[in-house]
Amino acid sequence: MSQSLPRKDLFSIPEGVIYLDGNSLGPLPKAVPARIAEVVNEQWGEQLIRAWNESGWMEQPGRVGDRIAALVGAPAGSVVMGDTLSIKVFQALAASVKMRPERRVILSDNGNFPSDLYVAEGLIDTIGKDYELRVVDPEAVEQAIDETVAVVMLTQVDYRSGRMHDMARITRLTHEAGAVSLWDLAHSAGAVPVELASSGCEFAVGCTYKYLNGGPGSPAFIYVRPDLIETAQPALSGWMGHDSPFAFEQGYRPATSIERMRVGTPPVIQMSALEAALDVWNDVDMNDLRATSVALSERFIAEVERRCPALVLASPRDATIRGSQVSFAFEHGYAAMQALIAKGVIGDFRAPNIMRFGFTPLYLDEADVVAAVDILQDILDNKRWADPAFQVAQSVT
Amino acid sequence: MSQSLPRKDLFSIPEGVIYLDGNSLGPLPKAVPARIAEVVNEQWGEQLIRAWNESGWMEQPGRVGDRIAALVGAPAGSVVMGDTLSIKVFQALAASVKMRPERRVILSDNGNFPSDLYVAEGLIDTIGKDYELRVVDPEAVEQAIDETVAVVMLTQVDYRSGRMHDMARITRLTHEAGAVSLWDLAHSAGAVPVELASSGCEFAVGCTYKYLNGGPGSPAFIYVRPDLIETAQPALSGWMGHDSPFAFEQGYRPATSIERMRVGTPPVIQMSALEAALDVWNDVDMNDLRATSVALSERFIAEVERRCPALVLASPRDATIRGSQVSFAFEHGYAAMQALIAKGVIGDFRAPNIMRFGFTPLYLDEADVVAAVDILQDILDNKRWADPAFQVAQSVT
Repeated sequence: MSQSLPRKDLFSIPEGVIYLDGNSLGPLPKAVPARIAEVVNEQWGEQLIRAWNESGWMEQPGRVGDRIAALVGAPAGSVVMGDTLSIKVFQALAASVKMRPERRVILSDNGNFPSDLYVAEGLIDTIGKDYELRVVDPEAVEQAIDETVAVVMLTQVDYRSGRMHDMARITRLTHEAGAVSLWDLAHSAGAVPVELASSGCEFAVGCTYKYLNGGPGSPAFIYVRPDLIETAQPALSGWMGHDSPFAFEQGYRPATSIERMRVGTPPVIQMSALEAALDVWNDVDMNDLRATSVALSERFIAEVERRCPALVLASPRDATIRGSQVSFAFEHGYAAMQALIAKGVIGDFRAPNIMRFGFTPLYLDEADVVAAVDILQDILDNKRWADPAFQVAQSVT
Repeated sequence: MSQSLPRKDLFSIPEGVIYLDGNSLGPLPKAVPARIAEVVNEQWGEQLIRAWNESGWMEQPGRVGDRIAALVGAPAGSVVMGDTLSIKVFQALAASVKMRPERRVILSDNGNFPSDLYVAEGLIDTIGKDYELRVVDPEAVEQAIDETVAVVMLTQVDYRSGRMHDMARITRLTHEAGAVSLWDLAHSAGAVPVELASSGCEFAVGCTYKYLNGGPGSPAFIYVRPDLIETAQPALSGWMGHDSPFAFEQGYRPATSIERMRVGTPPVIQMSALEAALDVWNDVDMNDLRATSVALSERFIAEVERRCPALVLASPRDATIRGSQVSFAFEHGYAAMQALIAKGVIGDFRAPNIMRFGFTPLYLDEADVVAAVDILQDILDNKRWADPAFQVAQSVT
C-alpha cells in the first residue's frame, strides 16, 4: 500500500461518517473554502472586472485542463475545462460524426450513463438526418463495431456495476473499423489509471465532482487527440472558443488550440474550487492509488459475502475489469441504504435494487471498510431496513 | 428618483472606486460570501451527497429561475437556470428552427453579440443543411423580416452602443411573418424593464453576471413561452431535463415543465452566489430603476459633452432607445480607459474605439457620475492617456 495514502488530513469529512459515495460527489478538500473566499472577496470583490486578467481567470480553463490531463495520461494542451459533462458529450459526439460524414451509426451500450444516450438522441434530432443510435449490451460492443459505425461512444466504468471496458482494446477495434472513439471517463478520472494518449482515442470527456472532488456542479473536461485539435469542429461554437474572442469579429474562427472547445464565460468560482481541490493529487501515483483501491474493494467484497449473505455481488468479481466501486444487489436495497446512511455509512442506491459503494483511497482505509461492514451486518441481521422511516423518497447522484 | 435607490450598503465596492462596468461584471453583493461559505462548509462539507435533497440543490435552477422571471416580466415556471448564455442561445435557436422546418433563414443583426452569431454558425454547421445566417444592420431588421425567415434572433440592447431594439414591435412583425422570436437579454435583465410575457416572444435567454451581479461565470437563463413548454425540443437533451432523471431510463423523455431545458448537473456553488445576489432586488421597482438609470445616463452625457469635447457620443441620444450604458468614441479610447481605471473609475473598452460606461442605480448616484467626469476631464485636458503605461494589453468582458 502506498506510503502516501490515505490523505485524510486533506479532507473535511464529518465526524462519525464513513464516506463511500465519492463516486457520486467527492467530499470537501480542506483547501477549498479559503481559495473560494480569496476568489470571491479579493478577486471579484476588489479587482472587479480587472480580475479576468489580473487573477488569471481567462486562462483558468486551460490551466486546470493541464492538471486533469496529467491525471488521465494526456499531454498538456489536450484538455480544457467547461460546461457540464452532458454538454461536452454533445460537443465531442457532434465533432465525431462530422469526421465520418458517410456513416450513420452511433454505437453505445446500455451500461452507458443514460444522459450520454439522451444527448446522442438530441444530437440526432438536431441534425435531423437518418442517424441511428445503436445501443447494445456491454458484452456485445466488440462484435457490433463494423464499418457502418461512425463513432463508438462508451463510458469506461459502468455507473451501476463498476464494470470496466478495456479502453485500449476497444479503441483499437474501433479504429480497425474506421470509426471514431469517444470515451466518457466520469467514473475513471481519479479512480483508475487512464492512458488517454496511448489508447489513441479521438475524444474523451469527464466530470470533476466525483473522484476529483471539485464540488457540486464542478465543470467538465474534454480531451481532443492532439493531431485533431486543429480540425475538430466545436459544434457549440461560443466566443471563448474563438481564436480572438476580444476582437469581436462577426464570423467564427476557432482557436487553433484546445481552447476551441471552450464555449461561454467560464464559471470562475466553481473552477477555482476545483483548482484548489486538485492539490490533493500532488505526488499521488495512480498505480499506487489503483492498488489501494483494489485492496479496499476486495476486502469489502470478502467481508460482505462472509457476513451479509443476503447481498449479491453486482460488480465484476475480477478486479481487473472493475473500477473503484462495488455494487451489491439487494431486494430491500433502497431502505437498507437509508438505514446505513442514518448510521453514518454513506453510499448510494441505483434503481431497481443496487447498493453502490465507492472506494477512494485518498480518504479511506481498511479500518473504514471493516467498520462499514460491521454496520451493514447489523442492519441486515436485525432487519433495521424494515423501519418505515427508511422506505421513502428518492436518491440522487 | 426612487426612495429605495441607490442601495450601496448592499454591495462591496472598494474604497475609491466608481464602478461603471456593471454591464460587464456586476460587483460583489455583501450577502454572497456568507452564502457561499454556508453552501461549501455546511452543505457540501457536512451533508455531502445528501445536500442534493436536504439543501434543495436539485430544485435550485427552477427556484432561481422564478426570481429571474419576476425581473423580466415572465410568469413563474417559464424560466430555468443553467449553463452559459452561449449554450442557452444554441438551445433556443435549435428549438426555434425546429418549429419552422420549412424555413431556412436565421435573421440577426451586426449589433448582436458576436457569440450569438458564432453559435448560430455552429448550429447550422451541425445541422449540415442549407440554412442561412442572414446578418443585417440593426436599422434594417424590420424590413428584412419576411416569410423565408424561420427565426429572428436579436440582442435587445447592443453591447457596444447601448442601442435598444423595440422588443414588442419587432416581435409583432416577426409573428406577422410567421417566424419565431428569440431575444438575448444579456444587457437588459436588471437594466431596463422587460415585459417578456406581453411581448409574446417564444424564447429569451440572458446572463446573470452583469446587471444581476451573480459573479464571474454565474449561470445563464432561458425563457420559453408557457404555451410552448411542452413541445419545445431541448436539443441539448441531458438527464436533468428528463421527466424522471433518477429512473435512469434508456430513452430521453423530456420533462413537461420548463425543467426540460436543463441539461447537466447544475453548478451549485455558482448558482448559490447568484441566489444570494438576487436579494438586492427585493422591493426594487423596475420603473424606478429605469428612471434613475436614465437620469444618471443623461447627466453623464451632458457633463462629458460639455467638458470633454474630444469624445463623440456613440450611443443613441434618445434615452428611450438606449439601455443602461453610454458609449463614447475616442481615438485614444483604449489608453484613456486604462488611465481612468488607474484613477479608480472603472469602465471598459470595446474595439476599435469605444469607451463603455454602465449606469447601475443599485450602487451609483449623481455624485459618482460627476466625480467620474471630473477624472475623465483631467485625463483628457492633460493628455494623461499618452502615458506609455496605458497603451498595452487587451480588455476583457
